[in-house]
Amino acid sequence: MVAMREPKVFPVFLFLFLSMASGAQHPSLMLSHKNLPEVIKGVDQYPLLKKSFLQVKMLADAALKNPINVPVPMDGGGGFTHEQHKKNYQYILASGMAYQITKETKYAEFVRAILLNYASQYETWPLHPKQKQSNPAGKIFWQNLNDCVWQVYVIQGYDLVYNYLNVADRNTIEKHLLVPVVKFLMEDNKETFDRIHNHGTWDVAAVGMTGYVLNKKDWVEKALKGSKIDGTTGFLEQINQLFSPDGYYTEGPYYQRYALLPFLLFSKAINQYQPGLKIYEYSNGVLKKAIHTALQLTYINGVFFPINDALKDKTFESEELVYGVDLAYADISADADLLNIAEKQDRVIISDAGLKVAKDVAAGKSKPFVYKSLWITDGNKGDEGGLGIVRSGENTDQQCILLKASAQGMGHGHFDRLNFLYYDNGVEVFSDYGSARFLNIETKTGGEYLPENKTWAKQTIAHNTVVVDQVSHFKGELTKAQAHHPQLIHFSPTKDLQVVSATDKYAYTGVDLTRTIVLANFKELEKPLIIDVFKVRSDKEHQYDLPFWYQGHITHTPFQIQSNTKKLEPLGIDFGYQHIWLNASGNSKTGNASVTILQNKRFYTTTFLADTSTLVEFVTLGANDPNFNLRNEKAFILSRQKAKDHLFISLTESHGNTNPTAETTIGFKGKVQSLKLITDTDEVSSFHFVVENKTYTITINYNNKQTFISIK
Amino acid sequence: MVAMREPKVFPVFLFLFLSMASGAQHPSLMLSHKNLPEVIKGVDQYPLLKKSFLQVKMLADAALKNPINVPVPMDGGGGFTHEQHKKNYQYILASGMAYQITKETKYAEFVRAILLNYASQYETWPLHPKQKQSNPAGKIFWQNLNDCVWQVYVIQGYDLVYNYLNVADRNTIEKHLLVPVVKFLMEDNKETFDRIHNHGTWDVAAVGMTGYVLNKKDWVEKALKGSKIDGTTGFLEQINQLFSPDGYYTEGPYYQRYALLPFLLFSKAINQYQPGLKIYEYSNGVLKKAIHTALQLTYINGVFFPINDALKDKTFESEELVYGVDLAYADISADADLLNIAEKQDRVIISDAGLKVAKDVAAGKSKPFVYKSLWITDGNKGDEGGLGIVRSGENTDQQCILLKASAQGMGHGHFDRLNFLYYDNGVEVFSDYGSARFLNIETKTGGEYLPENKTWAKQTIAHNTVVVDQVSHFKGELTKAQAHHPQLIHFSPTKDLQVVSATDKYAYTGVDLTRTIVLANFKELEKPLIIDVFKVRSDKEHQYDLPFWYQGHITHTPFQIQSNTKKLEPLGIDFGYQHIWLNASGNSKTGNASVTILQNKRFYTTTFLADTSTLVEFVTLGANDPNFNLRNEKAFILSRQKAKDHLFISLTESHGNTNPTAETTIGFKGKVQSLKLITDTDEVSSFHFVVENKTYTITINYNNKQTFISIK
Repeated sequence: MVAMREPKVFPVFLFLFLSMASGAQHPSLMLSHKNLPEVIKGVDQYPLLKKSFLQVKMLADAALKNPINVPVPMDGGGGFTHEQHKKNYQYILASGMAYQITKETKYAEFVRAILLNYASQYETWPLHPKQKQSNPAGKIFWQNLNDCVWQVYVIQGYDLVYNYLNVADRNTIEKHLLVPVVKFLMEDNKETFDRIHNHGTWDVAAVGMTGYVLNKKDWVEKALKGSKIDGTTGFLEQINQLFSPDGYYTEGPYYQRYALLPFLLFSKAINQYQPGLKIYEYSNGVLKKAIHTALQLTYINGVFFPINDALKDKTFESEELVYGVDLAYADISADADLLNIAEKQDRVIISDAGLKVAKDVAAGKSKPFVYKSLWITDGNKGDEGGLGIVRSGENTDQQCILLKASAQGMGHGHFDRLNFLYYDNGVEVFSDYGSARFLNIETKTGGEYLPENKTWAKQTIAHNTVVVDQVSHFKGELTKAQAHHPQLIHFSPTKDLQVVSATDKYAYTGVDLTRTIVLANFKELEKPLIIDVFKVRSDKEHQYDLPFWYQGHITHTPFQIQSNTKKLEPLGIDFGYQHIWLNASGNSKTGNASVTILQNKRFYTTTFLADTSTLVEFVTLGANDPNFNLRNEKAFILSRQKAKDHLFISLTESHGNTNPTAETTIGFKGKVQSLKLITDTDEVSSFHFVVENKTYTITINYNNKQTFISIK
Repeated sequence: MVAMREPKVFPVFLFLFLSMASGAQHPSLMLSHKNLPEVIKGVDQYPLLKKSFLQVKMLADAALKNPINVPVPMDGGGGFTHEQHKKNYQYILASGMAYQITKETKYAEFVRAILLNYASQYETWPLHPKQKQSNPAGKIFWQNLNDCVWQVYVIQGYDLVYNYLNVADRNTIEKHLLVPVVKFLMEDNKETFDRIHNHGTWDVAAVGMTGYVLNKKDWVEKALKGSKIDGTTGFLEQINQLFSPDGYYTEGPYYQRYALLPFLLFSKAINQYQPGLKIYEYSNGVLKKAIHTALQLTYINGVFFPINDALKDKTFESEELVYGVDLAYADISADADLLNIAEKQDRVIISDAGLKVAKDVAAGKSKPFVYKSLWITDGNKGDEGGLGIVRSGENTDQQCILLKASAQGMGHGHFDRLNFLYYDNGVEVFSDYGSARFLNIETKTGGEYLPENKTWAKQTIAHNTVVVDQVSHFKGELTKAQAHHPQLIHFSPTKDLQVVSATDKYAYTGVDLTRTIVLANFKELEKPLIIDVFKVRSDKEHQYDLPFWYQGHITHTPFQIQSNTKKLEPLGIDFGYQHIWLNASGNSKTGNASVTILQNKRFYTTTFLADTSTLVEFVTLGANDPNFNLRNEKAFILSRQKAKDHLFISLTESHGNTNPTAETTIGFKGKVQSLKLITDTDEVSSFHFVVENKTYTITINYNNKQTFISIK
């Protein structure tokens, strides 16, 4: 999937742009005048569209039940006026849709009345009194960003009731609301409007979509090509710059999902009003890739890989991906496996696109979503590292590995170069903490990121990667981390032997980190074996810690362990170590050791190199947490106390199961034995192990692309 | 539901018994010769029966795939010969069923061959070499109990292939296997055979069912009426004694489920061979009650209340309840809501009963299972306390409370008089640890109960009830606990105001415990409020600890808390306190305080009386656990440090929700405020609190049955 981007097609766009149709009919955004009769019929015919419309109608009916409330803006996020204005834009869109589908004028009348109410007040509102230091203020909300979102919803609602309004109402609403809003977003907030950043995308989407509906060509032009109309900023350049050639958004999957929405909405508007621009093909079709990549960044349970700042329960059922899947299927490429996702989302957008999806789902065209093993590049040019994803098995029971070798990901990035996640059997096995945040729960630091997001979640020890001398990568400093990125060494998704290998030379001065993860079939084992080889090279002596944050319960630790049964103390003093209780630690005298975990009724045994110089530490998160902000996750840490070069080798088996209903348990012991290092040089790492009396020798040739790995 | 048992109907039975039909046709147990054609047709017609048969056939096919293996008994539980003999009896039954449904002789031939193999060896086997000290030895297994289970399965398989066998084979199998097995179980193990105990039930079931199939009237007679045939022991007396009049089995729901199976199988055999005995009506129909009570001892997710020794993931999907539901529906009373359980079990027994269930499910006769609020008596006469269950809401979202005021429950009982469990929204909120055991996982103390079952799970502090001076009820001594039981004070399941109240005067010498739990509707609150009033009376000063073991994450603790951020130590030295880490503690200066928890996307706020003399302790389980045997559960403990009389009042609201997909949160704060005690005497407890500016006064009149509680 490594692909260089084609040259920009800017000149063509410039030409086509002039041909923008004027005075288009309404509605013309997600729902188009032309397709409306079909959509109305479809609401009766296709279960998915029907169910989705009933949800929208329920919201519209809720809007009509209470008196219109347009309060003078006062409260910050989560507060009353904030939530009311948020509700209002959702009401406006839902009522607009309900009007077009049912033709009941009460819905249009609501939209008319509330927009006139806004129009009567908006110009009198100053900048929001609760503005944040970190972000430009809005007028309706504390952040300009929220005002942009408000406008993106409202302009759709306006388009939906446009034909219902008389000319006088239209004039009032446009003159005293929509035009002033655009002025605020495009002129007063020119800096944001011209930013190549997610906030800028919301801004240009709001202005551009309004430009189309109000037939203001200059707004559209500026939204597409920046306030100077020179293409150095604006939507097209955002498309060029904000995604990698593979459609990856550098902040990570959680924010990729969020960042997608304004791209999708504005692109759809462009495609409606100026189909000749072929916006979906722009920049080598990166928007389509971004939708598909977002889906590939989920596990089979639909949850996004929670790398960087991420809420862990976010799935592809979220609204952004409903738009993404519907538009991708209807307007870009009707891939039958997208319907599988739409079925799981259990809703569609009330739109031309939603109609097509619901119709084809009803016709039984859906096919299982095709999860792939992929190397997904990061960086605008695709040369700033990336994510290695390796999968094996069906969508009902899949082993999945993620090697994180992407760039820092800006302010929401975590310091976790070469982090490794492992999923199996529908759940996490080796996991990422995600962000420390209880979204919108005011009693938890106002629902914002908790202090522990910085002191814990971003720190290296919170991740499954090597920490040197108990200090985080780049000492936890963003600007240094942002300046460098890991590099892919090898990616090969051959069936039965999948490999991804990457290196980082910047996280620590004087220490090179190289991690190679292999998913390989062995006939003696039930499931493919995970071979994790983490090479550390340095001229000086250091302490190297490699944690495995696991889900589940330990069932076997066949080596000597000293347990802190009567007193717990933190493992360290900073870089996240201050949050970890040390429960127990042990050494192996045999050269290797193993830990077995029971998770979701299946066993996982990790066998690793360990002699007396490697301490195995068992830890629980939760120290220095006076406000009960942290989840009490657990890890075992392989800690090499003093070494220059070191090689961590860990082999993880997925085996056996326990069935509580039948009260049976099989295969509770792993089969890998006698793991032993043969050689470790700059060019080669080699080791062997025994499975059911058969000895396997693994050799990794870091510089040999042809035979990067051999198993004999 | 309190009901005295009718006089025993023994003389009638004695008479009817003589009329037992001789030389009945085969098969005549779960599958009867007469109904076979219908069952065979039904396997094609009814999805539930079809699916269930395919599972049985898969097992039978697995049996046929490998060579017959009847090893000389050698290994204990979990070991090879143990597991092989266990497989063998399952194979024999499955193959017998497969033969009757498909008429393919290969299945019958397998049963013939393996039974002849057993017959060639059985008489040469001595007592099992790995016999346990605690239980009588078997010959095939280490425990006689397992031999009984083996025979219960095998005799069914024999009955199923009886007509396939020639007379010579029958003679060999009966003479050298079945007759010697019965001799072993009935004569060599006479003590177990005559025990009024679950092990005795398996023994008489094995002997009695074999007696029917082999037409040995004296075996049946002894199985029913004990080895002396005087009715002082045997199956009928077991029915009389082992269940309460409400059909409760004193060891608790987990063992009730297990204990049911031999009752069900033997009763079915009796009903087939001697329908005139009306076994299901015996002892006031207690077997039917036992099945229904077992179902009422589950929450809406199907999980049994995990009081006493219990594995927490056990549900009504387990095989015992599949038998129970099928037989109850087909042979006792065709209650449409049993079909709802059968649908959730997603299988039926391949039997006459299973046919009827599958047919009626296919006909759409199923109705939602009727969960009830109940007082379920314990004790053979129904006078040894009981369980109070209070429910509110639909089967999709139900509040459920359990007050445990039952007798000790023998060796598997926990020391938790007046323990309280709370479920809502499909999950546990205030929970019971269950037993400390990893069933069949050999690396965890051989899969047996862990040492921590005694040091932790049975101790009082592991439960949501009062501990005095950090010592467990009855000092954790079984014989003392077994001698006494709590007593019901009041039970009233009136809609909108449900109350259960019970008292215990024996758990501590000189301390009386009385707990009253109310589920009451208030128009200001979204859901019924839980009012928990725990009265403690003593002449001497003590420390009173009341823990709330919760599931979920704390989101709000609006009072001063000192956190042990840098060092954790156990809360005590024994009676379970040695396993608890003290994370933090706090005092309230306002007379009351609250804790809010987020569990499964809903909020729970418990507001309680607390002044400077009450310490609120936040704890995590896990101290003194060198083998990682304990789950790290969490609690807050209300600890009254020095008092004679004391009243704990705790009000728990279920409120608001958080939606990660839509990223919305509402109602994260509770509404109950200003909780204040008015009076607390032997006769009356009274207090008030405020909800949305309305003051409510609650008065409990312990001696007034008419107005036990008033809310004003």
